[in-house]
Amino acid sequence: MTRLEPLLNPRSIALIGASANAGRIGGMPLDLLTRFGYQGMVYPVNPKYQEMFGLRCWPDIESVPEAVDLAVLAIGAAEVVPMLRRCHASGVSAAIVYAAGFAEAGEQGARLQDDLESFARETGMPVAGPNCMGFANLNTRAYTAFASVFKTAERQSEPGIASLLTQSGNVCAAVYALARQRGVPFSHFINTGNEACIDFSEYLEYLAADDRTQIVLGYIEQLRDGPRFVRACRELERRGKVLVALKAGITDKGAHAVQSHTSALAGDRRVYAAAFRQLNVIEADDFAQMAELARLAMLRHRTAGRRLAVVTMSGALGAILADKFITGGLELPELPAALQDVLRAGIPDYGMVGNPVDVTGNVVNDPDFVRTVLHGLAVSPTIDAVVVYAPGYMLDRMAQALAEAARDHPRLFVAIDTGAAQCRETLREAGVAVFDDLGRAVSALVPYLHWCEARKQRHGPVAGQRDVAAAVPLPCDEAQARSFLAGHGLPSGGWGTAADAGAAVALARRLGYPVALKVLSADIAHKTEVGGVALGLADDDAVARAFDTLLASAAAHAPRARVSGVLVQPMERGVVELIVGAARDPVFGPVLTVGLGGVLTEIYQDTSHRLLPVDERTAAQMLAELKAYPLLEGYRGKPAADVAAACRAIVAVGRAMQAAPPELGEIEINPLLVKEAGRGVAVLDALILPAPR
Amino acid sequence: MTRLEPLLNPRSIALIGASANAGRIGGMPLDLLTRFGYQGMVYPVNPKYQEMFGLRCWPDIESVPEAVDLAVLAIGAAEVVPMLRRCHASGVSAAIVYAAGFAEAGEQGARLQDDLESFARETGMPVAGPNCMGFANLNTRAYTAFASVFKTAERQSEPGIASLLTQSGNVCAAVYALARQRGVPFSHFINTGNEACIDFSEYLEYLAADDRTQIVLGYIEQLRDGPRFVRACRELERRGKVLVALKAGITDKGAHAVQSHTSALAGDRRVYAAAFRQLNVIEADDFAQMAELARLAMLRHRTAGRRLAVVTMSGALGAILADKFITGGLELPELPAALQDVLRAGIPDYGMVGNPVDVTGNVVNDPDFVRTVLHGLAVSPTIDAVVVYAPGYMLDRMAQALAEAARDHPRLFVAIDTGAAQCRETLREAGVAVFDDLGRAVSALVPYLHWCEARKQRHGPVAGQRDVAAAVPLPCDEAQARSFLAGHGLPSGGWGTAADAGAAVALARRLGYPVALKVLSADIAHKTEVGGVALGLADDDAVARAFDTLLASAAAHAPRARVSGVLVQPMERGVVELIVGAARDPVFGPVLTVGLGGVLTEIYQDTSHRLLPVDERTAAQMLAELKAYPLLEGYRGKPAADVAAACRAIVAVGRAMQAAPPELGEIEINPLLVKEAGRGVAVLDALILPAPR
Repeated sequence: MTRLEPLLNPRSIALIGASANAGRIGGMPLDLLTRFGYQGMVYPVNPKYQEMFGLRCWPDIESVPEAVDLAVLAIGAAEVVPMLRRCHASGVSAAIVYAAGFAEAGEQGARLQDDLESFARETGMPVAGPNCMGFANLNTRAYTAFASVFKTAERQSEPGIASLLTQSGNVCAAVYALARQRGVPFSHFINTGNEACIDFSEYLEYLAADDRTQIVLGYIEQLRDGPRFVRACRELERRGKVLVALKAGITDKGAHAVQSHTSALAGDRRVYAAAFRQLNVIEADDFAQMAELARLAMLRHRTAGRRLAVVTMSGALGAILADKFITGGLELPELPAALQDVLRAGIPDYGMVGNPVDVTGNVVNDPDFVRTVLHGLAVSPTIDAVVVYAPGYMLDRMAQALAEAARDHPRLFVAIDTGAAQCRETLREAGVAVFDDLGRAVSALVPYLHWCEARKQRHGPVAGQRDVAAAVPLPCDEAQARSFLAGHGLPSGGWGTAADAGAAVALARRLGYPVALKVLSADIAHKTEVGGVALGLADDDAVARAFDTLLASAAAHAPRARVSGVLVQPMERGVVELIVGAARDPVFGPVLTVGLGGVLTEIYQDTSHRLLPVDERTAAQMLAELKAYPLLEGYRGKPAADVAAACRAIVAVGRAMQAAPPELGEIEINPLLVKEAGRGVAVLDALILPAPR
Repeated sequence: MTRLEPLLNPRSIALIGASANAGRIGGMPLDLLTRFGYQGMVYPVNPKYQEMFGLRCWPDIESVPEAVDLAVLAIGAAEVVPMLRRCHASGVSAAIVYAAGFAEAGEQGARLQDDLESFARETGMPVAGPNCMGFANLNTRAYTAFASVFKTAERQSEPGIASLLTQSGNVCAAVYALARQRGVPFSHFINTGNEACIDFSEYLEYLAADDRTQIVLGYIEQLRDGPRFVRACRELERRGKVLVALKAGITDKGAHAVQSHTSALAGDRRVYAAAFRQLNVIEADDFAQMAELARLAMLRHRTAGRRLAVVTMSGALGAILADKFITGGLELPELPAALQDVLRAGIPDYGMVGNPVDVTGNVVNDPDFVRTVLHGLAVSPTIDAVVVYAPGYMLDRMAQALAEAARDHPRLFVAIDTGAAQCRETLREAGVAVFDDLGRAVSALVPYLHWCEARKQRHGPVAGQRDVAAAVPLPCDEAQARSFLAGHGLPSGGWGTAADAGAAVALARRLGYPVALKVLSADIAHKTEVGGVALGLADDDAVARAFDTLLASAAAHAPRARVSGVLVQPMERGVVELIVGAARDPVFGPVLTVGLGGVLTEIYQDTSHRLLPVDERTAAQMLAELKAYPLLEGYRGKPAADVAAACRAIVAVGRAMQAAPPELGEIEINPLLVKEAGRGVAVLDALILPAPR
């Protein structure tokens, strides 16, 4: 039993600030508890009343005759902490605080919230909110929320298996209403409020362990504990549960005043999206879509994946649906020849035996043939799921065969009816997913089927091959950065440092002309901006002159920087320049970023991100996610690049970041030159930045 | 009266192949015509019956006692043309052919369709289909379609103002059902079938002229007559009508085997999208969205535009909605200080007076204040439309004030209710657009409000400043291409040709070192591929050597090419390289394409397209549409580019294409180097290709 049990599954509830008016926040939970048959004890607390909702009313928490599991505080912000102390003294195990006026409301509120947090820390009492709408356990009918949606939404009779977990009460109510309209049965209704003492991730951990909950619908504005969220997601996954999450906010943090490209690229939303993807969390972007996803996930025992067969009675409708699925990254594979033969035997010439299958309007009148088609698709190893799109009476005529197929086979069957088919309930009872709209079907099926595919493909979290923390001076110059990175597997050779012009010339001769010179200073992060870089130097003379020019320019532009000489490296040629960086996300910790090098990366936002650790397989996936990936494969007659070496370099940057002390804020290789296949990579520039204080 | 009048607004109808069975295609229209009270004459034709549906049945078309407006042929493909001849001889004005088995069904069908087309050409009779579902004029109740949807969809009582025009019968029925569920009243139901004699654009022309039709919902697979479509769209626009169009097919033509970048970039879907945008056609991508758009367009007399105010009772809901609108390119401007003061007077501290406005849950209980808020928003000149998002009873409490605001002000008001508000009908009657879903509201409002904005901003079609057709040899070499383009306004100087090494050296000296040399041949389109380009030549010696190398290489790689020497041009520096091209689209004719130069353009598909002609203002819009546009504005400390000169060059390419003879297939400047502001552009490479035979 976790510490949230008395909060989320209370055996007894006291409502402090109880009201006899079911329309008020102090009355509504009492109305719901009594109306819907909560089996635990309920104690209204209000000195002004003797009784309300048929319940005896108590003058204060001290007079309540048992140590209740849960106290719900429907009182003003200023009274909250004193009342919590009295509750604690009376043996109350947990509390919910409705009141607004805490951290969200200026300085005075922040002080109140500090007090509340201190109280919770001292006593260990789980306190939900403040500024929350309260909860509901729909299986035990323990309503502690002032949400009228429970009165207007359709009542549920089946055991609840979906739980709502949101960082907004209004969102919780809105999604609940939409999902109930679609018949999704709920377990928990949780909105977290200000999260003074209990954050989203702790609730998620509870739901991961909760035997009732199989599906979680989450709404996230900002996570407070990323690592705990990651652990909870892994536990959900281990138990075969589904998390559907909507992340609010398009504004990427780091849009202003960031020191490195990596920070600019790894914006808030992108890191969340990467984490969701890595953890096989289904990312939603709309409330109705979340509700549809919850209903789909109720069929998660059915086998499914990315390869669809689409069956319609119209070529046009099939083509439109195929377009949408393919745009969403799903596949409509060619059907096997033998199956095509079976279809051809019953489909007129003007139909189609390809995928999508157009059985034509006539065929729906031949139930035996429809049965044959659906059976063939139910057992074909080339596909994972079957989508039937037929409006109204057309679907009705195919309904029996479709219901049979769904009963006889474990595969996912989907029916889309944009008319007014009578068979929807029959199909649902047989385990068919039914949609009344094309767009909604696609927007739910696409992420759900990707989830199914990933569930099949999982190779488990990457083993944390963690290097010993290595020393790196901070701030550091490029030579120090390169040495540190080489210790974790990045190519180490092919460069050197020189403290005077003569040494630079000697080094250049040894490395081979032409060479590049860069000023060496831990105080200069962006060498180009101070005129500290000279490229394509062809001979001794050019190197000697460049040495002097670079140092003079650096001294002029950055007079206080300590300069220890120059870094010399040969000019290199390759196929593609990448940017590979690692930065610390305030929520999730170290995050790896890979993109195409150069100014266009930021403009096109063509990057891939992962929480660390990553292995070479993941690195390869990151590269493959880039729209610019074809450049690495040998684009338009150009040679293919050494992708394997690029992957090793990406992993090395990740390992370096994991081994680095927390004072190290960012690592950026920009560019990493990827040469022709078999020829490796070259680090053209390396930058390490300290963490901001 | 157009020639389609007897087809779409018939005063009398004969149904040939009539059936007494309302479930058969020869019976269904008769059932609909008699059931719903068509006022014209109806003549079933079938020698086996005396009577059906209470109508006298006639043995053949010859015995029908009047020359009917319209004959509907519910007979097999092989019998169609002979029957059409009989109809024509009997004075029938127009015909609809249901039968499949024509051009879509192999060689024999194609022959039948040829016969049908010959018949239509000879007689001038308008023949709809074949392979179509028939029509309906919902205002006169002239049903000639075998579509059961008319029996299941809600009947309409108001005058119909929306018309469906689709290239698929099933799509016609599906969208009709969805739009009727939403109360959209229809005028015409048209599906075009094989378009043997009457194509989409001719029907669209009819609807543009039709006084009843105000809104057209179109579904397009492939247009046969692009210029006629363009003219019809301009007429729709002139009359203030709305066209919502869904274009099927993601497969871009030209993905294989194209000769130039321009063709590869200007794919089918992109050209349609550009045409739609240019013609202010609302592009849809879903059937339900089309239906929502039709309903929204019923409020097109209300003023609206891109600048929204969003009002909610929850910060979270407001933020989510704001995210979606802003992602869709709409604006939520800051509200004026005076209006913010008004709001602040009634909104608690924990609400928000910004945009989105969070009035908080409490405020809905104060109808006077809600009225004040909505009035303030209704008259503020900083916004164009007002969106209120409040679930269920919250919306109910605001409903009266909202209805009043919509009645008193011409501005567009929108209400979104994800609960079960009682007030929806009241709001609709007051002229408020009501949605029951966030996603649907956004997916309809975004394109609709862009349409409203464009309607306000229209500067009319670009005047066709058409140059006199100039001569250009085809195929032509780069020098000839440059001369031709210079005649239409592209910069002409800064290059020359040389027939021998000595002349090349002399020319290089005059132009100034370093220079580039390119082999000159009308038979070599891609000079790099034959080793025909040398860059960065620094002195006489290098030029002389390069001359020989280039010619030798060209001779080796393209032995049959006629080579007339080299083109010499100085190496130039600038800010950004663009690709500017013009090609002939098989549907729409000459199309202009602008993108960032280089290999990444194709990978990121960052291009803009327009039908010709374009003026400098449009050219500037095209550049501004590019994601890479910031590079032109001076990105990260780089200088700004000469956008004005780039626009002049873009217009010049368009003018050249318009003046070119039809044998000229493509023009491509790749790259067009845009220099620093005030320094103009340089044509680094020019290519003209003949049209494919």
